[in-house]
Amino acid sequence: MKNGKEEMTRLEKQLQFIVEIDKVKNIFRQTYLADAGRKENDAEHSWHIALMAYLLQEYADEPVDAGRVMLMVLIHDLVEIDAGDTYAYDAAGAETKRERETAAADRIFGLLPEDQGTHFRGLWEEFEEYETADAKYAHLLDNFQPLLLNDASDGLSWTEHKVRKSQIYKRNEKIAETSGEVWRCMQDIIQKNIEKGHVQED
Amino acid sequence: MKNGKEEMTRLEKQLQFIVEIDKVKNIFRQTYLADAGRKENDAEHSWHIALMAYLLQEYADEPVDAGRVMLMVLIHDLVEIDAGDTYAYDAAGAETKRERETAAADRIFGLLPEDQGTHFRGLWEEFEEYETADAKYAHLLDNFQPLLLNDASDGLSWTEHKVRKSQIYKRNEKIAETSGEVWRCMQDIIQKNIEKGHVQED
Repeated sequence: MKNGKEEMTRLEKQLQFIVEIDKVKNIFRQTYLADAGRKENDAEHSWHIALMAYLLQEYADEPVDAGRVMLMVLIHDLVEIDAGDTYAYDAAGAETKRERETAAADRIFGLLPEDQGTHFRGLWEEFEEYETADAKYAHLLDNFQPLLLNDASDGLSWTEHKVRKSQIYKRNEKIAETSGEVWRCMQDIIQKNIEKGHVQED
Repeated sequence: MKNGKEEMTRLEKQLQFIVEIDKVKNIFRQTYLADAGRKENDAEHSWHIALMAYLLQEYADEPVDAGRVMLMVLIHDLVEIDAGDTYAYDAAGAETKRERETAAADRIFGLLPEDQGTHFRGLWEEFEEYETADAKYAHLLDNFQPLLLNDASDGLSWTEHKVRKSQIYKRNEKIAETSGEVWRCMQDIIQKNIEKGHVQED
């Protein structure tokens, strides 16, 4: 056993991080799987949107670096290991989210060798700031995937949380400027689910 | 509803694929999570090794394209939606594995627009052929990750399956030529688990 981080080799630090992040497999979200059998966890969600990052890059209205976005979304939820998942429509949780997540980023990315930790930290902050083309595309994926799963699972999560159309529109307000085509598709899905009674009209 | 694939738009085909592959979240492997609480599924495993592809690229003895390997490992288990997971040390299952997986690849990658389906199919075949530097590195990750989880979970899966040292060495016979440093690390972990009685000495 090593006494402290300063005595660990580079590979040992990397392996410690790799085993630590296994914990996101136990952080469950409010979204159900497409078959409605159970809720999905952060690792599954991140896998799904990393693949979507490759497949849907042609719909981003500003050019994006799909490989960079894949890495950004693979790590975007790691802070939830310490900070927990904050449901998209939980206003109280949202107030303390930033503080909890910054402390988590310090600890978790701090496990890595400095160059890799700094790179991941920068990607995570870029995602949170929601300003660059890559970050906006990553958020589009992060919001579109649960919409697809909610639609596939007959709106189970929307119904449970009595979600209103205005809440979904508020959460996705930047999608229209990120991809006109995806936003049209999302609006169609929301409208269909209003008609089915899964989403409440305001 | 569309009557057939020929009438679907490009985006509809992509979304059909994205919802279809949600099923890998219900394909469970023999490996336990690090906390030994339950077994992990293919989506979680693929997420984990995609991140490892970025972090450990410096140890590949031949140059690899980490972004390309990330995509390769994100899709490498999709065929199991139809073909199921074949445990690493299941000799009977291994005999029919190739045939089951080829039929699965035809159907699943066939859901995508032709250019993307062909690209994914090619990456999957390259992985299966285990010849290129990228494919060898992808296999290293695919084998190293369960070793790390087995070690973290006190060898639970090895103990349950009475796995012998020679089986692990046989399965990992190409790792030494892919990364000398990772292979030394893997040998140390195997030896530690022999001493603890989790892996059987031959």
